[in-house]
Amino acid sequence: MSPAETAPDRIAVAGIISPRSVAVIGASDDVGKFGGRVIHYLIKHGFGGRLLPINPNRATIRGLPAYAAVGLAPGPVDVAILAVPVAHLLRQVEDCAAAGVGACIIITGKLADAGAEGAALQDRILAVAQAAGMRLVGPNCLGICNFTDRALLSSSLGLDVDALKPGGIGMVSQSGALMGTLVSLGQRYGAGFSRCISVGNQADLELCDFLDYLIDDPATRVITLYVEGLRDPARFAPQLRRARAAGKPVLCVKAGRSAEGAQAARSHTASLAGSFAAFEALCRDAGAVLLEDPAAMVFAADALDRLPRLPRAGLGLAVIASSGGSTVTTADMLPAAGLRLARMSAATRATLGRYMPESHVHLPLDTGSFDEGTAEGGLEACIRAFMADPDIGAIVVPMTTQPAMAPRARLLPPLAREGDRPLLYVMTAGEVGNDARQAMRDADFPFLDRVADALAVLRALEAEAAGRDRASLPPPARPAGAGPAPALPTGALTEAEAKRLAAAYGIPVTREVLAVDAESAVTAAGTIGYPVVLKGVSRAVVHKSDLGLVKLRLADAAAVRAAFAEIAAALPEREGVLVQEMARGEAELILGARWEPGFGPLVLIGFGGVLVEVLADVQLASAPLRPADAESMLRRLKLWPVLAGVRGRPALDVAAAVDALVRLSWLAADLGPRLVEMDLNPILLRAAGEGAIAVDARATLAEGLA
Amino acid sequence: MSPAETAPDRIAVAGIISPRSVAVIGASDDVGKFGGRVIHYLIKHGFGGRLLPINPNRATIRGLPAYAAVGLAPGPVDVAILAVPVAHLLRQVEDCAAAGVGACIIITGKLADAGAEGAALQDRILAVAQAAGMRLVGPNCLGICNFTDRALLSSSLGLDVDALKPGGIGMVSQSGALMGTLVSLGQRYGAGFSRCISVGNQADLELCDFLDYLIDDPATRVITLYVEGLRDPARFAPQLRRARAAGKPVLCVKAGRSAEGAQAARSHTASLAGSFAAFEALCRDAGAVLLEDPAAMVFAADALDRLPRLPRAGLGLAVIASSGGSTVTTADMLPAAGLRLARMSAATRATLGRYMPESHVHLPLDTGSFDEGTAEGGLEACIRAFMADPDIGAIVVPMTTQPAMAPRARLLPPLAREGDRPLLYVMTAGEVGNDARQAMRDADFPFLDRVADALAVLRALEAEAAGRDRASLPPPARPAGAGPAPALPTGALTEAEAKRLAAAYGIPVTREVLAVDAESAVTAAGTIGYPVVLKGVSRAVVHKSDLGLVKLRLADAAAVRAAFAEIAAALPEREGVLVQEMARGEAELILGARWEPGFGPLVLIGFGGVLVEVLADVQLASAPLRPADAESMLRRLKLWPVLAGVRGRPALDVAAAVDALVRLSWLAADLGPRLVEMDLNPILLRAAGEGAIAVDARATLAEGLA
Repeated sequence: MSPAETAPDRIAVAGIISPRSVAVIGASDDVGKFGGRVIHYLIKHGFGGRLLPINPNRATIRGLPAYAAVGLAPGPVDVAILAVPVAHLLRQVEDCAAAGVGACIIITGKLADAGAEGAALQDRILAVAQAAGMRLVGPNCLGICNFTDRALLSSSLGLDVDALKPGGIGMVSQSGALMGTLVSLGQRYGAGFSRCISVGNQADLELCDFLDYLIDDPATRVITLYVEGLRDPARFAPQLRRARAAGKPVLCVKAGRSAEGAQAARSHTASLAGSFAAFEALCRDAGAVLLEDPAAMVFAADALDRLPRLPRAGLGLAVIASSGGSTVTTADMLPAAGLRLARMSAATRATLGRYMPESHVHLPLDTGSFDEGTAEGGLEACIRAFMADPDIGAIVVPMTTQPAMAPRARLLPPLAREGDRPLLYVMTAGEVGNDARQAMRDADFPFLDRVADALAVLRALEAEAAGRDRASLPPPARPAGAGPAPALPTGALTEAEAKRLAAAYGIPVTREVLAVDAESAVTAAGTIGYPVVLKGVSRAVVHKSDLGLVKLRLADAAAVRAAFAEIAAALPEREGVLVQEMARGEAELILGARWEPGFGPLVLIGFGGVLVEVLADVQLASAPLRPADAESMLRRLKLWPVLAGVRGRPALDVAAAVDALVRLSWLAADLGPRLVEMDLNPILLRAAGEGAIAVDARATLAEGLA
Repeated sequence: MSPAETAPDRIAVAGIISPRSVAVIGASDDVGKFGGRVIHYLIKHGFGGRLLPINPNRATIRGLPAYAAVGLAPGPVDVAILAVPVAHLLRQVEDCAAAGVGACIIITGKLADAGAEGAALQDRILAVAQAAGMRLVGPNCLGICNFTDRALLSSSLGLDVDALKPGGIGMVSQSGALMGTLVSLGQRYGAGFSRCISVGNQADLELCDFLDYLIDDPATRVITLYVEGLRDPARFAPQLRRARAAGKPVLCVKAGRSAEGAQAARSHTASLAGSFAAFEALCRDAGAVLLEDPAAMVFAADALDRLPRLPRAGLGLAVIASSGGSTVTTADMLPAAGLRLARMSAATRATLGRYMPESHVHLPLDTGSFDEGTAEGGLEACIRAFMADPDIGAIVVPMTTQPAMAPRARLLPPLAREGDRPLLYVMTAGEVGNDARQAMRDADFPFLDRVADALAVLRALEAEAAGRDRASLPPPARPAGAGPAPALPTGALTEAEAKRLAAAYGIPVTREVLAVDAESAVTAAGTIGYPVVLKGVSRAVVHKSDLGLVKLRLADAAAVRAAFAEIAAALPEREGVLVQEMARGEAELILGARWEPGFGPLVLIGFGGVLVEVLADVQLASAPLRPADAESMLRRLKLWPVLAGVRGRPALDVAAAVDALVRLSWLAADLGPRLVEMDLNPILLRAAGEGAIAVDARATLAEGLA
């Protein structure tokens, strides 16, 4: 598409989402047809604009005058929605373009999602639209559901209910069926949506266009995304930060966490799934919440829309109900969900002690044996105490069947609204719990059916709070002595060059000298101090150990001479032989950096050696980092307790590891796309106060440094 | 309770569960009262026996003649159910005993669950009952729900529905409220229960009594348990094996997985939670399925009741639906749930290829773009192919909103019933999915609302299949040369004694000699071969390393003499100094054995060193073991890939580790309670074919071995 073929946009995204006039191409009285459902939902849910059914064979549809073609309908037409057979699609789009339509929402599928022929047709349709300045949503989408303004431009069966409750949850989805399902799921629990957009194949308008809209949309308080692959990841990270600055949590399910999921996502909407790990790091860094389960995303969004947010990350939970069995099993499920019970304050314990014997004053709190007390003000007093306890971030109420379920449910919303923490009400029973559920709907208060759902929500709330906490920190500051980079050639660097680069950013590396013959190696060893290591250096050889080019623990001059001879024999073509101090440490870390196209500079930290492979114990983040970011990466490692000092072992120099990682992150940020990748592997970490040192390094530059 | 005070039982458990006559003490017309609900549910759900309301103030209740006291009601009375204030309980129980009542179901609480005073009253009530031969259920229970025979002896609000569907799920629960909730939950999904028993404080009849009943009960096909603490664990393991032999899966949620859960369970029904790890090992060994989430237990029980079981453990899954988004996100959720997609056979791929282009023939299978084909026989063909595929254990259908949801749902039950594998149908949408749900209820076919629930069910089905597979193996056989144990003293053994015990069971230990002076140590070192290790030996010192009593890598006689002198100075009181070969290995394992009261002999294996602490990477099982059992313990270790050989590292001698663990298990089984505990830590594991060797050992004997 050359610029000459592109006309200015006829309509903005906001105009498409809240159109004044909508033409339904292929409109029908038959709700069994796509075009029948679209017009049905528009009328049923009270669309307030002009509605223009287009059908050459009918004079009226649903009592409205029908037009044989969009060009015959009274303009202007903000949006045309097309649910026509793929064979007629191009002509209909051409008609729309000619008629001055602002945007087409194309529900029709089998375009780029169905092979090369469909992709070619999609390109032709896009060209027609762009030449006219007409925007496209889809194809292969389920349209746009604007609940706030009752403009339901969609054929989704998810709209097949009597009343749609609007609310603060916005959604952009690369799966229309999933979107309709999640809207329906949410409505069952009283969740309310603002605008939900199914983007389909994203021929023109794409996920980020609608994300931009939702960030600025006053009706949207929480944003949910179902992402298969980003068309332009570079747009995404700044948007997430913008949403965070606007105080709007972004929740996201990303296809492709598993290898099979990634493959399947590629063949679904013809999008590249991209690197899941990079996406995950991007979300964390920008304060977005990445979830696995789309249903959990809706529940978490609802909690963020209708309940207070967590005061901050890292707090505990209060679990309270009148069933010992349900409180105990809920408490037992917390550790696997990465959650914990709170440690109640003395004040909270004192309040509880007024209603039950001391032996029962503990979390989880079973009020069952003391219901007389708790029913008469006791429950209220306990919950008020929890709301004021500094270690309690949220309250979970896992209800079981019992007398007066609904009256008890009714107690909670006003009580919860006095406080500033989320209270999650769970009703596990089947239909006997329906009165309690209805009480919650009547009070416009969220509820859940499953304790497991509540824990998934709490994990998401915790991630949201952590993102919020991080966003409140000052921006990363460059440490003293980090850079500039020295002059280095393009391509794979030698170990010595890579270490020079690391050292220029203040990362400690082994003392070493490049020796050209055995005697200068012996001299160097004497200066460095025995024992030493010898390594054959060649730009062509990356895995030196595999070729026997690394000789460890050389204790004297004779050993150095013998090792030099062996290396010389194994590597006739070489830059030299590195004579290196023999460093020691208590743990091996690997630090890495790479440029991920679309995502920018990333850094990685993990445990070195065979464990990295087995445990996949690595953490990734966008560069540059603050020290606090680097430390939280370390704390997320499964083997973190090894660094912190476990059972009598000394704590290691975490500060040195943090410093090295921060410095590497500045290196990666400064070099940008010029640094293809860099590994410091291993970095040996010593006991606290004794530092860290990189003993091997490699790096590849896309272009040389001057 | 002395035997003299105990009369023979008036009634068997089966008679209590299916009584011919029931007296309701404290019967009322008011369903707001416990006694009112009990009689209400008995009548409403069609109790067919004699119903005897007991109330001194009423002539009739619910149209039935009421009696002022149980002794005035026409006998015989099989069961009296008591929901009376705790102050009147003893007198009522005395009346029942005097009137010849077979058993009392005591709903009244605040007995042993509410402190010492309540516990004393509970003891008096038990004494009254036992003296008469009258059995007790409870107190502090919610009674017995016999769905099969419509004898609903319970006040649980979970029964507050129009119709109760009977089925094959039996339940024994230490929480009445949880039981009622789970029954209600199950009924929503069309699950059917046989007999559900709330055991409360288990003053007399306890969980194992009812478990025994359910194992023999023809109406019960699957057994579910909510356990807070076993009164007699020694009864439990044989019962699990009996259930397995009867082909009845046992599913179990056990309180106390977390420390807080364990504490809370203790204060709930006054039962000791016991060692969770031992309970977990017991369940696995006996083929019972331990779950975390009570709701998942009900869903899994329903799947086992109404669907075929998995052909065997270890198979993959087919995920199929007409939404790319839902199939992809479902596939992405599998790895975290410990599940995997299947590898389709060529035959399956060929079948699928008839309905969709080759590029779409992969799992998860998205039929969305090819619905025309799949709707007309394609879906059926795919599912039949999956049912015949040797790597497909189960099929998951994660439905989203779409046209014709209910007709499509109706296709599945008959299709699934043609095959012999479970098909899990998931309907995530809210009320727009209700027709599809009803279609499944009408077809008596299970459905779920949440993909996460389906995955929890599949994990449980996998565990059930693994237990079934294991039960089909021949019993453990003693390896050659395992025992007998040598004579050894009571108490903590020395390292040399513990190794002698291990060696007597054929476990390889380091070559070593106990030396009394430096010169005999030098002589021994010469025989063993340098380098050697010296260890000071004293029965009083367990942690030798901490006191500097272990000297490693002694390369010559001078080093041995120096080391001996240092040890002699540090440990004047000693049995001697052990001169030991300096063994090497590629990995450090820890093997342990202990006697767990109520559970019997247990063995443990894990990785040694600091990692054990950090990763909690240990596996426990009951002794003795088959080699296959020992190997599957190894395979469950997080670090198993280290043993199997990861990325270029050699595979280690897994067979030697298996052999050592099997031998230790026979040692533990033979010694029984005489072996308090034993650790072989570390056992060094070498490369495949090169064996394993225990380099240190300790053990404590409760009594000496002759």
